[in-house]
Amino acid sequence: MASDGSSNSSSIPDRQQIARQRLRIIAGHLQKPLDPSDGDISARECSGPDKQPGDTTTNSVPRRRQEVMKWNGWGYSDSRFHFNKKGQAEFTGKRYKLSGMIMPSLKEWFEGTFGANVQHKSFASAVPSPGSVKPPALNQAFVEGVQSAGVPFSSDAEDRVFRGHGHCLHEIFALREGRVGRVPDMVVWPNCHDDVVKIVELACKHNVCLIPYGGGTSVSSALECPLEETRSIVSLDTSQMNRILWIDEKNLTAHVEAGIVGQDLERLLGESGYCTGHEPDSMEFSSLGGWVATRASGMKKNIYGNIEDLLVHVRMVTPKGVMEKSCLVPRMSCGPDIHHFILGSEGTLGVVTEVTIKIRPVPEYQKYGSVVFPNFDMGVACLREVAKQRCAPASIRLVDNEQFQFGHALKPQVSSMFTSFLEGLKKFYITKFKGFDPQHLCVATLLFEGDREKVLQHEKQVYDIAAKFGGLAAGEDNGQRGYMLTFVIAYLRDLGMDHFVIGESFETSVPWDRVLDICRNVKERITRECKDKGVQFTPFSTCRVTQTYDAGACVYFYFAFNSRGLSDPVHVYEQVEHAARQEILANGGSLSHHHGAVATAAAPCQGVQPRRQRIRQQIFRSFLHASAAAPPTNGARVGCLFLLNNDLMNPNGARPDDQRVLISGRTPPRTYPLPSTPAELELYRPSSLLQVVIPRSTPSSLLTPAPPPENAPSPLTLGEVYQQQRLARKTDEV
Amino acid sequence: MASDGSSNSSSIPDRQQIARQRLRIIAGHLQKPLDPSDGDISARECSGPDKQPGDTTTNSVPRRRQEVMKWNGWGYSDSRFHFNKKGQAEFTGKRYKLSGMIMPSLKEWFEGTFGANVQHKSFASAVPSPGSVKPPALNQAFVEGVQSAGVPFSSDAEDRVFRGHGHCLHEIFALREGRVGRVPDMVVWPNCHDDVVKIVELACKHNVCLIPYGGGTSVSSALECPLEETRSIVSLDTSQMNRILWIDEKNLTAHVEAGIVGQDLERLLGESGYCTGHEPDSMEFSSLGGWVATRASGMKKNIYGNIEDLLVHVRMVTPKGVMEKSCLVPRMSCGPDIHHFILGSEGTLGVVTEVTIKIRPVPEYQKYGSVVFPNFDMGVACLREVAKQRCAPASIRLVDNEQFQFGHALKPQVSSMFTSFLEGLKKFYITKFKGFDPQHLCVATLLFEGDREKVLQHEKQVYDIAAKFGGLAAGEDNGQRGYMLTFVIAYLRDLGMDHFVIGESFETSVPWDRVLDICRNVKERITRECKDKGVQFTPFSTCRVTQTYDAGACVYFYFAFNSRGLSDPVHVYEQVEHAARQEILANGGSLSHHHGAVATAAAPCQGVQPRRQRIRQQIFRSFLHASAAAPPTNGARVGCLFLLNNDLMNPNGARPDDQRVLISGRTPPRTYPLPSTPAELELYRPSSLLQVVIPRSTPSSLLTPAPPPENAPSPLTLGEVYQQQRLARKTDEV
Repeated sequence: MASDGSSNSSSIPDRQQIARQRLRIIAGHLQKPLDPSDGDISARECSGPDKQPGDTTTNSVPRRRQEVMKWNGWGYSDSRFHFNKKGQAEFTGKRYKLSGMIMPSLKEWFEGTFGANVQHKSFASAVPSPGSVKPPALNQAFVEGVQSAGVPFSSDAEDRVFRGHGHCLHEIFALREGRVGRVPDMVVWPNCHDDVVKIVELACKHNVCLIPYGGGTSVSSALECPLEETRSIVSLDTSQMNRILWIDEKNLTAHVEAGIVGQDLERLLGESGYCTGHEPDSMEFSSLGGWVATRASGMKKNIYGNIEDLLVHVRMVTPKGVMEKSCLVPRMSCGPDIHHFILGSEGTLGVVTEVTIKIRPVPEYQKYGSVVFPNFDMGVACLREVAKQRCAPASIRLVDNEQFQFGHALKPQVSSMFTSFLEGLKKFYITKFKGFDPQHLCVATLLFEGDREKVLQHEKQVYDIAAKFGGLAAGEDNGQRGYMLTFVIAYLRDLGMDHFVIGESFETSVPWDRVLDICRNVKERITRECKDKGVQFTPFSTCRVTQTYDAGACVYFYFAFNSRGLSDPVHVYEQVEHAARQEILANGGSLSHHHGAVATAAAPCQGVQPRRQRIRQQIFRSFLHASAAAPPTNGARVGCLFLLNNDLMNPNGARPDDQRVLISGRTPPRTYPLPSTPAELELYRPSSLLQVVIPRSTPSSLLTPAPPPENAPSPLTLGEVYQQQRLARKTDEV
Repeated sequence: MASDGSSNSSSIPDRQQIARQRLRIIAGHLQKPLDPSDGDISARECSGPDKQPGDTTTNSVPRRRQEVMKWNGWGYSDSRFHFNKKGQAEFTGKRYKLSGMIMPSLKEWFEGTFGANVQHKSFASAVPSPGSVKPPALNQAFVEGVQSAGVPFSSDAEDRVFRGHGHCLHEIFALREGRVGRVPDMVVWPNCHDDVVKIVELACKHNVCLIPYGGGTSVSSALECPLEETRSIVSLDTSQMNRILWIDEKNLTAHVEAGIVGQDLERLLGESGYCTGHEPDSMEFSSLGGWVATRASGMKKNIYGNIEDLLVHVRMVTPKGVMEKSCLVPRMSCGPDIHHFILGSEGTLGVVTEVTIKIRPVPEYQKYGSVVFPNFDMGVACLREVAKQRCAPASIRLVDNEQFQFGHALKPQVSSMFTSFLEGLKKFYITKFKGFDPQHLCVATLLFEGDREKVLQHEKQVYDIAAKFGGLAAGEDNGQRGYMLTFVIAYLRDLGMDHFVIGESFETSVPWDRVLDICRNVKERITRECKDKGVQFTPFSTCRVTQTYDAGACVYFYFAFNSRGLSDPVHVYEQVEHAARQEILANGGSLSHHHGAVATAAAPCQGVQPRRQRIRQQIFRSFLHASAAAPPTNGARVGCLFLLNNDLMNPNGARPDDQRVLISGRTPPRTYPLPSTPAELELYRPSSLLQVVIPRSTPSSLLTPAPPPENAPSPLTLGEVYQQQRLARKTDEV
């Protein structure tokens, strides 16, 4: 009987006995994995709805990605921009609203902006040249294990090449030149959570290196295979784990396999009248598990939240076992939150296999909108006010003037009115926005969701605020086109590359009072750096504010330039991007708002990664020495918090050190991984004279192990700098 | 020149050299702390606004707490309930709205509910009996260090006793009997972040055990001094770190020292027209740092968010150094979020010294409200709908019938109408709520905030929803009284104890579709357990739903009983509470929504804690062996995620294992720390026949280290159980 039982359990001797017993068991459990022979494979059937092998009804991206996807560019093979014989820009295929349309103004804008000539073409090699792919270095024992576990796998060159890269510029650039670097030796396609458990256990047993692969849209180099990796690298492709296991209409949650891609998830939920509302720009191809592993942010987070807000429960298979919370509750206060260890781990700690995610009824009503502001400053001020009043629509984005013009250049042919880009632009602003300078005006695009009545109220509230900042409503079409472009814009980089124009995007989050500085300083810095690095044409350097929060915003930068005449365009590109990121840090921005960690720290170029690997390993080893050496009650080993990293899982993924957490104990404090050279130290002195921020991480302390003189002034903390600014401001006001 | 610099920095040889250099430095930095002689103290002045020593203008709770606070009960010495000579309940003092008032109905309710007699009194010992406090075991080297660092300290018996406990029942009960267990040997009062750095460095150097002390309101045993602790225990009292260092009106953030208590924080911010809006029931006494360390939840989280939502930046002093993010941005995607390591760490990883927290303008308008429902089920259904429509007011709470009657009994004397409790109650429902059964009706209290117009709209929306569930508006007064009671209710336990009635509260979070089950089952379980454990009177067992979320709710339980005739009332109490928690787990609830980890795992009684300590140490040691033993690329050591725990910092605080994270790798999975006995295994079979949940943690696997037979059926995951329920439901519907 329960009650009897618990009364027994609480008598002292009992409890001590139980204590000893559990102590043995737990210790045993924890040590077991040390003995590889213990990694016995469990033979369970996949749970959840049956799946036909090769069943692609739910799957927009087939197992053989090459059937529909480009091998060296973005997205679907049948969808691309090109300049037709008449020199008109055209978007091929049938998948998108823009498909099959002509963009009459794009050529003029393109040639004008980049000093390019659409006649000059740089052809990408069509398929990986036979010799370019090294034969796989297979781990036979692992292969046999996978075979006997009945998990599909392949070591076909194409399968491997498709999973050996993400979409960083340097990755795509190399592929276009037919240069295929290290790629996985083998691809496995688990069908369910239990398959992943088997694979990870086999990997531990046979010392194979696993790189989880979801949608392959990584822009953080996380899918790159380290050149110095000596083990067999296996790409664990979750694309076949794509089922919705259950929908809980009472709690508004759905339990979904992590390999499902965004478009499929929303389509399938839509059939039941629900959605997650999570819409990252990559949602056509990126996967649920990838969102979790990289802390994805969705366009409509103002209603639905970012991935960390949508998450109710996660299962992650680690070499140590399956990690998951033991209940599906909305909030817990028992110690640190393991979900926030998993979020952002970028495949370094394990494989996310199943996710319980919040769902909402599909909104009754959607309405787009747009507002034109006389200049960017007014636009930012308006967004800040909207955030302050907590009335942001599902999505609100502010593009700067350069991006406004760019968007204009992408207008498809509707009348003869737009035969000349400048003509059209002029007409547009003259007719609609008298007195607005086309070289300064900027546009906010809006998306409202909810029930009709509330949306209309909400809309009025936002437009009223906008009016206070000189904003004029610019119609639903402009807004809708803005969001329509979200998905096709990623295809434009390939068009650029076809004509020697290379570019990429990166993003940051920043306090409100720094938004204007960071936008101006970073764009200027890019232009200056391009000049310094020998770029012969002015770069296209633009930004938009894509997310608003209580205490700050997300700023998204694009930049691109005509690389003709440069011997190593990618290297130049990465030097410029690296400088731009230093400018971001110096202006109080974060390394990343949602893209992830690696690209940022990997800049300025690939060569950096092995360095980071070595440093990490050293870091972790030192920690381990520290901890193992010291007795448990010794002050020296304590208080430090870190993830016992997994050299097996995705050696290229994020690490805690990517976060630039300050471990500053002594004065002056030390930090890693940035900056590491006097040059980088220089970069910490912002080029703008405003808002000087000196991070607590004084690089000099990194470069001089010797302790500083007794009376050395300690660097200001961000807090102290802010405080001084506050005081200064106060006195100004007096 | 910056640009030159970065172009140099990117040439391969340079980078490799830098890599080697940084590698040495970082490794060196990480190993340094192993050498205690390295713990040199930095001598920096406290930053921020000047503070006069002993300046208490901002400080509601003085350094000598004993001047205003009870030593063996809740809150201010001048405020307490008692039955006066006429036998009428009275609340003393001048601090609260209820102060100086008579509650005519309370006696009848009290005697009727508990079978108590207000003539029977159990007197608490007035002050700690001289012999009861052991003389301090001081670490002289540490004391001298503190002295020369100029940090105030004391080893006065009263100072130590006041900091040797929180407010768990067993702690207060012991104090009332004059039993003072192990208390800190010394109390230190740092004045600022840098003082804390000095103290922690000294503690490392001299191997002293630190327990951070904020407001002392812990109900998770986290302030208890472990009996088996051999080192000198020092209570680090943050109460003097109570300044607002700056207010940033552009980003709506404030940077505040962590020792400030809630009432002071809100009062001081209020002077500038701002608030945090964070209002835990303990906010009179609990501190900002304590909120962070325990993941506090505020009454008005629907507008302001819980502490994790309010947090922008935290500084934590660990023995390894100061841990903080390097920027003040709204969101980052670079790896795991260290804030979620600090949140819930309950002082085990370090001392939270400064917090940047969101602020909002003080709301223009506040309005209370209340709704009476014919029964609890209707009330819960209404709250669920409100959450679904995302229109919850700042606060919405639903109390069950028992608590409704209790609240009624607390009505202060306003007319002669309430001379009889039942009379009054009858009158109340007959006159106002015809047809509502006073034994079943329940009440939701509401608090709206914002600008007037919106509040009125919002109010209408909520009352319209309530009407759909049979709810009738019951006026602002009832609502306001509900919230007014929040702060005085904590004083009632002392009144109970004066008359042999002991009780406590505990809380959980649970998915929506389990709220009714968990409320019913836990209340029934408490009644049954009390009977089984020999309690001679029916217990008072009640609950309220205090927070609503998208996917579930927080449920808050009170229970109390007349302990007369029991030899060890506290032991019985803790057995019952333990059983109640097992019932919660079995019904899919969490161990805690906001109170924290330790009490939960520490149940059923203190004796358990040393056990937990030992188990933890074993766990961490095994991990360390695992990690240190294995070469970096060995599968065995990888993928495991844990906090390198700090035996120095608060040995009684939360640990990852308190979270019942499943580390299940093999089949059947293993888990810790619960359950650990066949009796507890029994408890996993819920007493309710509805919503059976079998956690993936099958206790049997804990009790049998030997691997199970090949064909052993694997236990259902929560997910699988849910799924079956979904399918079942679907078929029902067909």
